[in-house]
Amino acid sequence: MSSPNTHVTGPVVGMIGAGQLARMTQQAAIGLGIELRVLAGAPGESAARVVSDVRLGDYRDLNDLRDLAKGCDVVTFDHEHVPTEHVRALAGDGTAVHPGAEALVHAQDKAVMRERLSAIGVPCPAWARIATTADIESFAAEHGWPVVLKAARGGYDGKGVWVCRSAADAAEVVGSGVPLIAEAHVAFEREVAVLVARSPHGQGVSYPVVETVQRDGICVEVLAPAPGLDPEAAAVAQRIALQIATDLDVTGLLAVEMFQTASGMVVNELAMRPHNSGHWTIEGARTSQFEQHLRAVLDLPLGSPAMTAPVVVMANLLGGDDPDIFSRYEHVMAHDPGIKVHFYGKEVRPGRKIGHVTALGDDLETVRARARHAAVYLTEGIYT
Amino acid sequence: MSSPNTHVTGPVVGMIGAGQLARMTQQAAIGLGIELRVLAGAPGESAARVVSDVRLGDYRDLNDLRDLAKGCDVVTFDHEHVPTEHVRALAGDGTAVHPGAEALVHAQDKAVMRERLSAIGVPCPAWARIATTADIESFAAEHGWPVVLKAARGGYDGKGVWVCRSAADAAEVVGSGVPLIAEAHVAFEREVAVLVARSPHGQGVSYPVVETVQRDGICVEVLAPAPGLDPEAAAVAQRIALQIATDLDVTGLLAVEMFQTASGMVVNELAMRPHNSGHWTIEGARTSQFEQHLRAVLDLPLGSPAMTAPVVVMANLLGGDDPDIFSRYEHVMAHDPGIKVHFYGKEVRPGRKIGHVTALGDDLETVRARARHAAVYLTEGIYT
Repeated sequence: MSSPNTHVTGPVVGMIGAGQLARMTQQAAIGLGIELRVLAGAPGESAARVVSDVRLGDYRDLNDLRDLAKGCDVVTFDHEHVPTEHVRALAGDGTAVHPGAEALVHAQDKAVMRERLSAIGVPCPAWARIATTADIESFAAEHGWPVVLKAARGGYDGKGVWVCRSAADAAEVVGSGVPLIAEAHVAFEREVAVLVARSPHGQGVSYPVVETVQRDGICVEVLAPAPGLDPEAAAVAQRIALQIATDLDVTGLLAVEMFQTASGMVVNELAMRPHNSGHWTIEGARTSQFEQHLRAVLDLPLGSPAMTAPVVVMANLLGGDDPDIFSRYEHVMAHDPGIKVHFYGKEVRPGRKIGHVTALGDDLETVRARARHAAVYLTEGIYT
Repeated sequence: MSSPNTHVTGPVVGMIGAGQLARMTQQAAIGLGIELRVLAGAPGESAARVVSDVRLGDYRDLNDLRDLAKGCDVVTFDHEHVPTEHVRALAGDGTAVHPGAEALVHAQDKAVMRERLSAIGVPCPAWARIATTADIESFAAEHGWPVVLKAARGGYDGKGVWVCRSAADAAEVVGSGVPLIAEAHVAFEREVAVLVARSPHGQGVSYPVVETVQRDGICVEVLAPAPGLDPEAAAVAQRIALQIATDLDVTGLLAVEMFQTASGMVVNELAMRPHNSGHWTIEGARTSQFEQHLRAVLDLPLGSPAMTAPVVVMANLLGGDDPDIFSRYEHVMAHDPGIKVHFYGKEVRPGRKIGHVTALGDDLETVRARARHAAVYLTEGIYT
């Protein structure tokens, strides 16, 4: 029997972090009738501006995490910076956390990730834990320069990655005191990404393989599907991503960034949350990555990853000097009534991801030109 | 120059009302970086659960409306029940209100609407203002029984409409004291709807004509595009809707419900807001009606109304006796990974619209069966 105050409510999902990924998750949560609660560092954060149930707190503080978790059906993540031991502690309290600590650590710690992927036979660059410049020199003696040094924890968007061409370069990075791993430089043809979802009961789905175009270590463009990719190579890439999800017991989304090389795919990075390489799915797939993540962490059956158009291109909006992007909507929308603009309500800083645009259609060059035109005009005011 | 607290914010749109239309508008607002503010009667209302900036108040109280409007770039509506004189007063304060009072009154008062549509040559049923049973009898003498009596103001979802087969029927309705109009009963083949948008600078777009399937005066299903509709008849219907939008100076969305008859289209009702007949556009059109309404009221260029699939079917979820719909997601999602479920977070009451589902595809019968299966299972727990 329903009383006048009985609302039909879906489950409550707590998301740690309130960036644009949580913001876009809210769009999907609204549709499904799921109540999204976010843990924000400040009230003005991207998702905190569009969610009713905002808890202010610090993702490094276990008490704040426990307060968030109270009453949630499941807790999940907008980023991978939550201390692994806190994730374990939440699970110890009886909170359903997806992905769990034992999976998530592979997206948090690159040494742990490389060890595990190597153990399960996933193609990776040659790599080593290193502590000293001498370690790097001996790694370079075997694998050659340049050597790629990566902070074991905390890097993102090209931060925490140093391409070192000499021992002197390496010494400078080692001197900073950050725990590092070394990787052989991969001579890749291009970078691709595979987004898969896996639910606690073990269902998995894969989105089409996409090409990610990077500039200065930041993704600027995603082409779906990866143009000209051999179907067999695409299937291999999808199998690798699904294997990682299964073997690492990932629950929720898993984005696997790969290098396409002459001798096959090599795994670069993992993320266990909605990912920039999947923003195109909002309009470009029957089930957006944000809806898919919610379905996966709630152990609901997964949605169709089928594309809604033959070609989809997503271009990031990177902040420039002028914060007044909204005033440029008029031209962009008039120029292309089919362009989809996404804007994160974030403080503009040069180079920061503040939004994205998506174009859909039949022909790659046309669709790509449309996405670029909109992105360049919105961020720089330049008509291309 | 941006300071650390400078967020890039889009305009602020105030929506009077916090039902499911405002709720779904929030999904579009999030994408565009528009800040949506709603006026809700109670904190638990559908949109109030998913919007940060909720103002509690009464849409019949001019002071509450003025408080809402403060700081908004534009004010618009989730329903048409705001007193026309209050809409005029807001505009008199200098608030941008879309649609404006002079347009909106045609969606509020059926006598005003019929007079105006007749004056601009839009096909309508024969109609008359009536006050007494004798008026109705003389109307029936000219146009025959049954006579359709409609409350001039405040009806929705079949409420406020009475099909009278005799003077005795009519006397009962007249006795209730509600101001009425009489309309000749239209022998229609089916009901269709045309959704158009018009911006203050005069741009207009039309979505494809859809068929609306009603049960007991409530829309239960929408088929897009209207199956088998002759392209010329579709173009006529779209021209009628765009003409009404232009001649009545509608800003924002205009939904025109029509009867398809052997002698052409006849206009039944108008709504000036997102409309149930347009929910299919969320996934089924490049620009959802909710995004389109925001673009129109902000005088931004309108988005493409093109369909994303050849056939789209939307089925409403009408509340039954069991409020526990969410527990049925599992079957529905497993059965059909492409079905899109929308759930409004509303109190369940028998017959109330509490959500909808959308299916997309190539073949009408298949797509319609998918939508029906999901809707029947979600609301009744019956496997069809």
